[in-house]
Amino acid sequence: MPEYREIIDNPRSERIRRIAELSERRRRQRYGRFMIEGPQCVREAVACQPQCLLDIYVEVEPDAGMKPVSTAAAQIRNSALKAAPRAYIHYVSSRTMQAISKDAQGIVAVGRLEDLQVQANSLLLPQDQTGQAESVQVAALWQVRDPGNEGTIIRTADAAGLQALLLVDDCVDPFSPKVLRATAGSIFHIPVVQVSTDEFFTWVQTRQLPVVAADVYGTSDRVPVSLPDMLAQSKEAASGLALLFGNEARGLPTALLERSDSIVSIPIYGKAESLNLAMSAAVLLYSLAMSSRLGRM
Amino acid sequence: MPEYREIIDNPRSERIRRIAELSERRRRQRYGRFMIEGPQCVREAVACQPQCLLDIYVEVEPDAGMKPVSTAAAQIRNSALKAAPRAYIHYVSSRTMQAISKDAQGIVAVGRLEDLQVQANSLLLPQDQTGQAESVQVAALWQVRDPGNEGTIIRTADAAGLQALLLVDDCVDPFSPKVLRATAGSIFHIPVVQVSTDEFFTWVQTRQLPVVAADVYGTSDRVPVSLPDMLAQSKEAASGLALLFGNEARGLPTALLERSDSIVSIPIYGKAESLNLAMSAAVLLYSLAMSSRLGRM
Repeated sequence: MPEYREIIDNPRSERIRRIAELSERRRRQRYGRFMIEGPQCVREAVACQPQCLLDIYVEVEPDAGMKPVSTAAAQIRNSALKAAPRAYIHYVSSRTMQAISKDAQGIVAVGRLEDLQVQANSLLLPQDQTGQAESVQVAALWQVRDPGNEGTIIRTADAAGLQALLLVDDCVDPFSPKVLRATAGSIFHIPVVQVSTDEFFTWVQTRQLPVVAADVYGTSDRVPVSLPDMLAQSKEAASGLALLFGNEARGLPTALLERSDSIVSIPIYGKAESLNLAMSAAVLLYSLAMSSRLGRM
Repeated sequence: MPEYREIIDNPRSERIRRIAELSERRRRQRYGRFMIEGPQCVREAVACQPQCLLDIYVEVEPDAGMKPVSTAAAQIRNSALKAAPRAYIHYVSSRTMQAISKDAQGIVAVGRLEDLQVQANSLLLPQDQTGQAESVQVAALWQVRDPGNEGTIIRTADAAGLQALLLVDDCVDPFSPKVLRATAGSIFHIPVVQVSTDEFFTWVQTRQLPVVAADVYGTSDRVPVSLPDMLAQSKEAASGLALLFGNEARGLPTALLERSDSIVSIPIYGKAESLNLAMSAAVLLYSLAMSSRLGRM
């Protein structure tokens, strides 16, 4: 809410340098803050998670009073003045914004990490009265390393109406600027939870969610079920599940496939060897989301 | 088939410079050739379009006879010796390969453009005896500009068993190295046809393929049909169609929506504003491919 009505025009100041440093994971961890770049992400943060916002930096035109460089930035500033109780609004010159981020498009915000970091134990899901999860769909990524993939899958999980996205073991930090941009703001819409492999399996067991692993090959004991067959049965989709995806290059290790309740594969009708991770996730998440909704109708 | 058993070790030679220049569109057009980087793409070119191959460059280890640096490269070289009748095999040093491409991973090939460039008129599709297209599914991209998107959609169209991919109006050149890499070799599996907007509509009309435009908003006259509703009717998917996708940022212009037979949108179940182009394409192409196959069973 507070607004500093003077223009920051010192790209080399300590404050500006510290914001730019939030592109590095170790700085985010040390300061407990992260950077939100561009109108799309800042708008969603203001709309859905205003409590996490500490500072908003708006780029203004030179010699035009305090006029933001874009209408989008001006609108978000106005919303933030009402919705973000703790956020300070600052105005910066073009060269100062360049020093903060090359991807600002006129607006950048700084958020408090702990307000968005969800602990697995505290994540509440809609559950029916027997305590069994009903129609809960979550996705889990194991050791996903590409920021674009991770962000795009978070965005798709949001669009498909999933209740949460779990990052299992050593995935890329969801608060890195590249991941954030690829989510197009969806990181402010659904809970993104970082867990170890054991924590993940405990979490789904507690909630009685079957784990469906996405894998082309399966194990020596189990052949994957083809997606259309799984949709035809449609029990699983309708009663809730956790869809587990592996690393871009290595997929899921046998140990994780063995701990999963079933294995699903996407049929290849043409000559391609496979789909890439993000496309597989889009096909599976949406097929199951549409199927479970049709099943409930 | 012919093999030059001496190692090229001159990164600055005219020949090497000319291959590297094939990363530029105007050079590809002038020389009528394109560059195929890396084991995955070269392997698929050798397996599925060997007639287009002119030269294959294999990186060899220093002081180890003519031993390729990777087993993959060695295997592809062996296949090419049998399968690619016109291709010359050359061996190059590591620094020479670096000068050709940073993404070679030990093997690069040069292909003749005219052998892969399919003319819309000459593209044959499976048709029934009445002349009406039966279960033909093709995808069309209008003014798609991101190489990664275009390549990934070609790969997904291949995996989903589509018969062709049409690039309408001014799309990114499918023979650029970035697109080729993103196809993971699928450009050698399905015909990729470059057409103008008018040629596209004539082409689908001749083949009696209804055009289904993917669009969130529709026109003032027509609301988009939601994908699950379209799948429930499933007529269109079973009897063949052309799915049309628009530009990443601007989508499809009204004029093109009005010329299409129907408009389909993917439901958003969560808070995301939309899916990105590649993810939308994955969801639509696969939903329709799976649905038409179930319908035919």
